[in-house]
Amino acid sequence: MEDKAQIQEAIKVQGEVVRKLKSEKASKEQIDEEVAKLLELKARLGGGDDGKHQFVLKTPKETLTGKYGEDSKLIYDLKDQGGELLSLRYDLTVPFARYLAMNKITNIKRYHIAKVYRRDNPAMTRGRYREFYQCDFDIAGQYDAMIPDAECLKIVHEILSELELGDFRIKVNDRRILDGMFAVCGVPDDKFRTICSTVDKLDKLPWQEVRKEMVDEKGLSEEAADQIGEYVSLHGGMDLAERLLQDPRMSQSKQACAGLSDIKLLFSYLQLFQVTDKVVFDLSLARGLDYYTGVIYEAVLTQAGVAPASNDAQNGSEESVSVGSVAGGGRYDGLVGMFDPKNRKVPCVGVSIGIERIFSIMEQRAEAAAEKVRTTEVQVLVASAQKNLLEERLRLVTELWNAGIKAEVMYKKNPKLLSQLQLCEETGIPLVAILGEQELKDGVVKLRVVASREEVDVSRSDLITEIKRRTSEA
Amino acid sequence: MEDKAQIQEAIKVQGEVVRKLKSEKASKEQIDEEVAKLLELKARLGGGDDGKHQFVLKTPKETLTGKYGEDSKLIYDLKDQGGELLSLRYDLTVPFARYLAMNKITNIKRYHIAKVYRRDNPAMTRGRYREFYQCDFDIAGQYDAMIPDAECLKIVHEILSELELGDFRIKVNDRRILDGMFAVCGVPDDKFRTICSTVDKLDKLPWQEVRKEMVDEKGLSEEAADQIGEYVSLHGGMDLAERLLQDPRMSQSKQACAGLSDIKLLFSYLQLFQVTDKVVFDLSLARGLDYYTGVIYEAVLTQAGVAPASNDAQNGSEESVSVGSVAGGGRYDGLVGMFDPKNRKVPCVGVSIGIERIFSIMEQRAEAAAEKVRTTEVQVLVASAQKNLLEERLRLVTELWNAGIKAEVMYKKNPKLLSQLQLCEETGIPLVAILGEQELKDGVVKLRVVASREEVDVSRSDLITEIKRRTSEA
Repeated sequence: MEDKAQIQEAIKVQGEVVRKLKSEKASKEQIDEEVAKLLELKARLGGGDDGKHQFVLKTPKETLTGKYGEDSKLIYDLKDQGGELLSLRYDLTVPFARYLAMNKITNIKRYHIAKVYRRDNPAMTRGRYREFYQCDFDIAGQYDAMIPDAECLKIVHEILSELELGDFRIKVNDRRILDGMFAVCGVPDDKFRTICSTVDKLDKLPWQEVRKEMVDEKGLSEEAADQIGEYVSLHGGMDLAERLLQDPRMSQSKQACAGLSDIKLLFSYLQLFQVTDKVVFDLSLARGLDYYTGVIYEAVLTQAGVAPASNDAQNGSEESVSVGSVAGGGRYDGLVGMFDPKNRKVPCVGVSIGIERIFSIMEQRAEAAAEKVRTTEVQVLVASAQKNLLEERLRLVTELWNAGIKAEVMYKKNPKLLSQLQLCEETGIPLVAILGEQELKDGVVKLRVVASREEVDVSRSDLITEIKRRTSEA
Repeated sequence: MEDKAQIQEAIKVQGEVVRKLKSEKASKEQIDEEVAKLLELKARLGGGDDGKHQFVLKTPKETLTGKYGEDSKLIYDLKDQGGELLSLRYDLTVPFARYLAMNKITNIKRYHIAKVYRRDNPAMTRGRYREFYQCDFDIAGQYDAMIPDAECLKIVHEILSELELGDFRIKVNDRRILDGMFAVCGVPDDKFRTICSTVDKLDKLPWQEVRKEMVDEKGLSEEAADQIGEYVSLHGGMDLAERLLQDPRMSQSKQACAGLSDIKLLFSYLQLFQVTDKVVFDLSLARGLDYYTGVIYEAVLTQAGVAPASNDAQNGSEESVSVGSVAGGGRYDGLVGMFDPKNRKVPCVGVSIGIERIFSIMEQRAEAAAEKVRTTEVQVLVASAQKNLLEERLRLVTELWNAGIKAEVMYKKNPKLLSQLQLCEETGIPLVAILGEQELKDGVVKLRVVASREEVDVSRSDLITEIKRRTSEA
């Protein structure tokens, strides 16, 4: 066995090398190379008894390196008391990919709701936080083209329809079409990613500003920028994919053609899934993250149905008033392989639902509609009409609990009947089981329906059945 | 308005003061005082437009200071890229208390499942991780004594009974009884907390080692230690509380008497809740956390019913083979006030369920019993008997999805019927809706029951009703 202390020292030094390169904004390739060395050292350290676990626990920072492109600056890097470098997870996709690789899972379909962290300027009013929930759905496995991809879009369509958030559009594009487009427009290879990040801003900035950034900041030629400008104004459906396959420039790119053929296939499945009313093939959709390899998509809520769908005119993008992206995702076939020592690939496609943004929209709607939201699942309050009946209330609530009924008592020795009834009105508890001295003598309980104020005496032995009958009706 | 830059500078300096005191292990009071100054400075900075949010966002480290006693060393302190000091949450109780104070909530009952972090040595085999889930249930509000406390114990009893984890005991004690006991045994005031932490080790160490730590490490007199030793060997039920109220030494302490009276009251409610079979009043239960003010409890699983309950002999603690604590909690009436600028108190009682430990026990049991766990909720697989029926499968699965049925197709153009049936067997999908050329011609679907292999032709128009009928039966 190697000398652990020696390796640990080497890991420390190598860690510094990686940090230095990153602070100097070295190239991704260079950083990746040094990170690989670091991982190799850690794996060697892991030769001991508890090695595998150590390895898994100590890589949160390295795990996230080189996956997010220009968004990497928003990763929360942290140093703990021992000087160990950590990061908080930026999204659920990279941890999912790592999980598949570590557990050698080659196919799975699952959803996951959990928190992610971005070191961004928080803006509460716009629902942008440093810590927030995401909900991800992913399908991993080697399958026939575009079938799981279409299911992801069906799911987004179903969620946004069921939640009644108003009209929406799902924009679809393909990383290969973007790359092919950049190639035929004359963007140098090493500028693909950075130009892609700029295109990604088209949902917030007008074309003129995006063009300016491409030319002035990123040094792209004016001709290339203008050619890109023509393409990214296009949107439509399967017909647009067909037209672009015939486009003299675009058809020069093998990559673009592969992407366009898949978009055609995707739309044929989307037709069967009955969701083409909301899906648009939109060449301006870029999504900045490095890990996408194929189809990409993003769902936006639109105001009062003014956004053009794939069936509408193809130059109507100015009419579309986006109120923000609420879901996005795509295909990432290379990510799992990056975590596998033998680079075994597991193709994946998935979607992140912006549940906090959706929740805040639903909250606003409920407020605007002045809807009364029921704040409890409790079905019955066990109440008393006179003093000194706490023990009787506790006895009865125990009976109800043991029968699986959601019941509650007020935590007071001698609460007033009125305040017990008020509690039900306020929180929406539908039934009250009232005990009084007379009821106890007669072996009954007075069952009161809060909404109608109707009261009926129910014999103690029938109470559970009666409550179950009444609550299952509701 | 004050000069922001100036205040920010003062905050930096004050932050350093706090960090220095902590690194020097200064007294809790001294640290609290300096933290208060820091908070005050931050509040002043918060005079601006976005101030309140800044305040809330930047206090995660200060929030946790001085709440956990000797366990504080396990808090994950972190510094981000900007040098800001953060901490990961150690439990769900302190964040809950802060939430109540910040939102001025004076009564609430809720549960919460989320991750917490401990900078401890991980031990996978014993289910001890640095990041793990907790599930907390808490009742906050000014109520009559011991009613919500008893409900918390009822809930722990219900959870552990329903999950069928084997026999268990819930140990109960009261912080006031412990403090009173320390006082009458001659423990100096300033040693209460540290001696309490040592008593807390009695579930892992024999009395002799605990005594040694008290005397040799913590400088307690041998007489005091021996007197404590007598008390902490006691356990029983309401009768023990009554006996101790008559105890010549214990009855000297007002605090102890208040605690003992409440234990009596608690047991009277627990009798009504029908849970005294599993609850033991145990004077050795300490729980190290600083924030408890009244009743405390801890649930442990025991092997094959060898642990003594309150009704059994009171000196049988050696027989009890604990397989680890799975839930714990207590009353913390002062914690919310610590986060309120005006120190307004909200009494709280709650319990943390160790869901990861429980889950790993359930997993082991399922493995031992070789139970087949159904890994999917899917009710129907839409399958095809011949080639070239992908479109028909997608059409049918869309119909089923739109009707709210949990359905799936294999993501293959031309899967073999056998592999589709195997998928159902493996994952536990109970029904298969099979399409073939003949079925399409006849307007039917062949519905196959996986378990019995029974097959029946169902007309397309009746299919949804038929599937719903069959799946609601199951």
